[in-house]
This record gives sequence, C-alpha cells and structure tokens, in this order.
Amino acid sequence: MPAPEKLCSLRWSAQYDALEVIDQTLLPHSLCWLQLKSLESYCHAIRAMQVRGAPLIGITAAFGLAQALRQDPSMANLEHAGAALLATRPTAVNLRWALDKVTSAVSALEPGLRGEAALAKAQQLRDEDIAACASIGEHGLQLLSGLRRDGPLNIMTHCNAGWLATIEWGTALAPVYKAHAAGVPVHVWVSETRPRNQGMNLTAWELQRAGVPCTVVTDNSCGQLLRRSVVDCVIVGSDRTAANGDVCNKIGTYLKALAARANGVPFYAALPESTIDWHCASGDDIPIEERDEVEVLAVTGMDASGETRQVMLAGAGTRAHNPAFDVTPATLVTGLITEHGCFEPSPAGLADLKAQMSSSRPM
Amino acid sequence: MPAPEKLCSLRWSAQYDALEVIDQTLLPHSLCWLQLKSLESYCHAIRAMQVRGAPLIGITAAFGLAQALRQDPSMANLEHAGAALLATRPTAVNLRWALDKVTSAVSALEPGLRGEAALAKAQQLRDEDIAACASIGEHGLQLLSGLRRDGPLNIMTHCNAGWLATIEWGTALAPVYKAHAAGVPVHVWVSETRPRNQGMNLTAWELQRAGVPCTVVTDNSCGQLLRRSVVDCVIVGSDRTAANGDVCNKIGTYLKALAARANGVPFYAALPESTIDWHCASGDDIPIEERDEVEVLAVTGMDASGETRQVMLAGAGTRAHNPAFDVTPATLVTGLITEHGCFEPSPAGLADLKAQMSSSRPM
Repeated sequence: MPAPEKLCSLRWSAQYDALEVIDQTLLPHSLCWLQLKSLESYCHAIRAMQVRGAPLIGITAAFGLAQALRQDPSMANLEHAGAALLATRPTAVNLRWALDKVTSAVSALEPGLRGEAALAKAQQLRDEDIAACASIGEHGLQLLSGLRRDGPLNIMTHCNAGWLATIEWGTALAPVYKAHAAGVPVHVWVSETRPRNQGMNLTAWELQRAGVPCTVVTDNSCGQLLRRSVVDCVIVGSDRTAANGDVCNKIGTYLKALAARANGVPFYAALPESTIDWHCASGDDIPIEERDEVEVLAVTGMDASGETRQVMLAGAGTRAHNPAFDVTPATLVTGLITEHGCFEPSPAGLADLKAQMSSSRPM
Repeated sequence: MPAPEKLCSLRWSAQYDALEVIDQTLLPHSLCWLQLKSLESYCHAIRAMQVRGAPLIGITAAFGLAQALRQDPSMANLEHAGAALLATRPTAVNLRWALDKVTSAVSALEPGLRGEAALAKAQQLRDEDIAACASIGEHGLQLLSGLRRDGPLNIMTHCNAGWLATIEWGTALAPVYKAHAAGVPVHVWVSETRPRNQGMNLTAWELQRAGVPCTVVTDNSCGQLLRRSVVDCVIVGSDRTAANGDVCNKIGTYLKALAARANGVPFYAALPESTIDWHCASGDDIPIEERDEVEVLAVTGMDASGETRQVMLAGAGTRAHNPAFDVTPATLVTGLITEHGCFEPSPAGLADLKAQMSSSRPM
C-alpha cells in the first residue's frame, strides 16, 4: 500500500490569493480544504475551530492580518484587523505573539509596502514553526531514547498536538514521529479528549496515517493506565506556558499530570517559544476560555448512512459548564521540551531558556 | 408544577409474575419498563446494562435466581442459574453476595419450597437495600453538615450512584437527597462519565427530577474544578471495596481522588456492606471488566427528529481499549460511608466495620 500523501495543515495559494487550511471540524470523516480570504473567514475559522492548536492559530492569524493589509494597508485597518483576530480566542498566547510579529514588521513601512511585507512575515513565521517543531522532535527523541525499554515505547498524549496543531511535525507528537522515523518502536495511548474529541478525531487519524500504532482510550482511563505501568512517558502540548513554568493546556491535562506524578511516570510539555507568555507570572493569571455548553451536551459523528449528524446526549433541561483549558502547576511537569532543548519548568529553567533564545538569534 | 411520581428502579409484579425494571439504556430520553421472566432475560438485562449499579445488579440477580427456581427448583438448576447470573459481569461483588444469600436460604429446603423461599429472600434483600441506603444517607448528611458553608454545598460525584443504581436513595447520592430534604442548599457537579455517560444520562436526570440543582461537566473538567475550590466534597459509589479499603469504582474515579487529595477536598466512597469483598486483600486483586471498544468509538443520542441514533466518532480502523473500572488506593479515600457509619479505609477501619456489622445483626 503506498504511503498516503504528505500533508501539512496550511498552505498559501498564490494562484487563488488565499490561505488554504484543512477544516479540522470535519476530520476524521472528511478531508476538506477551506480557502480563507476575508478577515471574517479567518476569524470564523479560528473561532469555530476549523483551525485550532496554539501554533496553528498564531500562523493562521498572521496570514489573516497580512491578507487584511493587502486589501487595506492603513494603520486603522492594521489595528482593526489585529483586534478582530486577537478577540477570536482568549487562551492561546501564540495568537498575540504572531500578530505582534507581523505588526512590528510592517507598521513603520509605507502603507503601499505593508501587505507584501506582512505576507512575507507570515510565510517566515510558518517556516520557523516547521523548523521549531522539527527541533522539538529531535530534543524529545533524545529524552525518549533515555527511556528505552525492551518492548515498544508507550507514550500517552492528550488532545492533538501533532502536525494538525502546527504546520508540520507537531509539538507533543514531534518526538513520536522522529522516533518512528528512526525505527524506534513506539505505541501511543490517545486520550479521546472530551468534549470535542480531538484525540480520537485528529490524533488517532494523524498517527494511523503515519503508520504509528495507537490506541484510543477514554480520558477516564488514563489514570488506570498510568497506575498499571503501561505508560513510559506522557507528552502534551501547551496553549500558554507561564513564566514560572505552569502549563495551560486542553482541559484534562492536569489530571494526567497528577496521575503521572503519583505513579513515577515522566510528564513533559512540548512547545515552541511562541507559547511562553513572559508577562504571565503564574498559570493562575491565564484567562480560561469557557465554551458553549452544547459541546458537552451533544456530539457530532457519522451515522450508518455516512451522514454527519449531531445527536443530543443529555436530557431536556440539563445544563453544563465547559471550560476549555486547565492549568498544570509547574511542580507536576518533568520538563519543557522546546526548540532550544529541554528546560526545567521553573523561573530558573525559563531564565536559561531565555538566555538560550537570545544567543541563538541571528546577528 | 406537581412533583414527578416517586419511582424506584425495580419492582416485583405478582400480577405478571415478573420483575419490572427501568431500561436504563434508554434514559434520559425515554422512561420504559422491562418485564424480566426468563433466566436469559435477566442475564441479558445485566450484561447489556439495562440494569446497572452494583447494588441493583445484586438484587436483580437475586430475583433472577428466584424466578429460575420457581420454574425448576432442582439443585442442578440452582447451580446452573447461579453460574449464568454470576458470569454476566465480573467486577461488582454484590452479584456474588446476593446469589450466595439466596442459595444459602434455599439449598437445604425441599425442592418444592425453594422457589417461594428464594423470592421471599430476594424481596428481603430489596427491602434491606432500601434501609441500608437510607442509613448511608443519614450518615453522609452528618458529614456534610460538618462541611457547611455560607453558600450551597458543592458536591462532586462520578457515574451514577443514585437510586437508579440501587432501589431507592442510592449510595453516593443518598446524602445529597437527605440534605435536599432537610433544606440544606446543595448543588451537584455531575461528571458525564465516559464512555457510557451515566453521569449525564442518569445522575443529571435523577437530580433534576428531584429538584436538586446540578451541572454536568466533562470528566476532564473535574481536576480544574477541584483546583478552583468550587467543590466542597467528592462522593462516589463503589462496585467492590477490598479488605484494605481500596475502592474499585467506575473508570475515572481514581483521577478525581488524586485531584481531591492534591487540593485538600474530602473524598468519600458510599457503599453498603454488600459491596465489600472481605476475601479480596487489595484492590489490585479485583478483576477489571474490559468492555467492547465500540462504547468508546461510537455514541448513542437523540437526533433532531427525536429518533435514538448511534453515530460513529472515530475514523475507520481506529482501535480502542475500554476498561470499565479503576482502583482508588485507600490512601486517597477520606472515609467509607456505610449503613453502619463512616469508617477509615484501612484494615483497622474495616475491622471496626466488621465488628459493627456483627453487633447489629438480629439475634
């Protein structure tokens, strides 16, 4: 069987003058590409989670700002479009980071030059994200190699922090892909990740496509698996990491970190530097997005006739509370795997990372 | 609005010579009663989880054995029917407990007397379960009263350990119902309880019907809620409790216990003595049922036209692992709330409970 076509989550189409992204709300049942052109289409794609994952949200917003400036390069539009994109989702800090990068690159330019400069910057951020994730993969693989046992390495992950959450490679899954490519036998425990099931719908799809053995489990099962010693390492992504090393990530991450610690299993967060909020002293300062209760009370899947259909799980009158993220205290995190290496999740560790970042900047 | 009819989960119908039970797989969308008559219908109801909950499984099996003996009171049939009922589900020890009670009550009798004696014994076990759960509620209410704060008491529970899991009152929910009846304001955080959603489908339905305020959350949200100090107490049921105080309960319980401990929130298991396996030295000796992967990969709900429909969540070729229970080590459990009072989850605490049980036996 031929290997499936290599994909990435996002591509700029010069032909259509549009950003093409996979509509992730339709996976795993359909692989469809969306063309984003208008500011509203970019904002909708991020808000409706057609694109999601902190790094991918950031890069998509950068292209959205570039496209808005190509249509109207005024300072007023730079501010308007930046604010609209920033307001789409509150938790992932990569969104603000990417918008700031584009804004800094273009605001001092003549209006007529801003559009193309912004597009070039967005392309550069995209390329840098790919390189950063590849590097996260290499650093993670070194850690995994230190864990090697007789059988396959058993990695547990949560939500989707694979290439669908970035451009290529992913963050948490980059070490898995690097291990697989290096011939290290690996098996991934994929937690389904309620309420939107990104583990079952995205991570399992990605891994199966790449030929990496994986098994889906309910989020509830993860404690039992960690207790039964069938997990060698937990690796998750992050939507925002505070300056003290607290990791904000998809709701349910904290429970896995508690169970990993209780059972002596290393727990890593893998993230590019763009995910670190240096202005945020502690995870408790991070705004946690609360999403619509219908995400909990109803679910969408494919019926017997192949139609996508929403079914109601709850009875009439049932109410739900739906926080999208939680905070894992730095004390529960073994290390932060970044493109600059693995760092201790502490103010000292983050200071080391910052020093490393400065020294690796091009002159 | 008039209060809804008071229900219990199971009733013997002399008119139809059948046990009538609520088909819990159809809740919350339909309230339907099943009539169980044949041994196969009893076994199917337990296996397919039309009846579920450790105490209710036990009582249902007792009626099933009684009905089998009324049809054929031979020792061969006593053994055959007992073995068939015992084989339906492996984890809840109440099943074996109830079958042993009926068997002891009838095996020395003349065959012609066995059927009616077995039915009388099943009725007695049913009545004792109601009394035990009411008593669990009273003991639990005392504990809750010690926690009282300015606002409503916020209780978190997992799965369904209400009257649907017993006959009346429930185990974990009995203190909640007693508090509500006593005018103590109470609010329940209901974890949805993947994969079968018994929290969302059964517990929320029960509580709403009784007028107890409740909010459904994903299982993943429970750590964040405990960290945010919006939970005063966690109370769960148990499917089997070992002689050292380890609590086996619905998958996901262990994660809540870890998060409760990490955040200084008391964590209780509420259970009748029939749930304790005195022959089981530790929770690690308890057989954990593994159920069909389809429970994880697909979900059943009500579509827009009011039809019950199963939709597939996972993509083609995705595999899942589906353990139904996990073990919470006794060290994470604040106390065991039983019909005899609240006991420390330790060999010493369980010895106290055993002494209390002996002293409260009728002479």
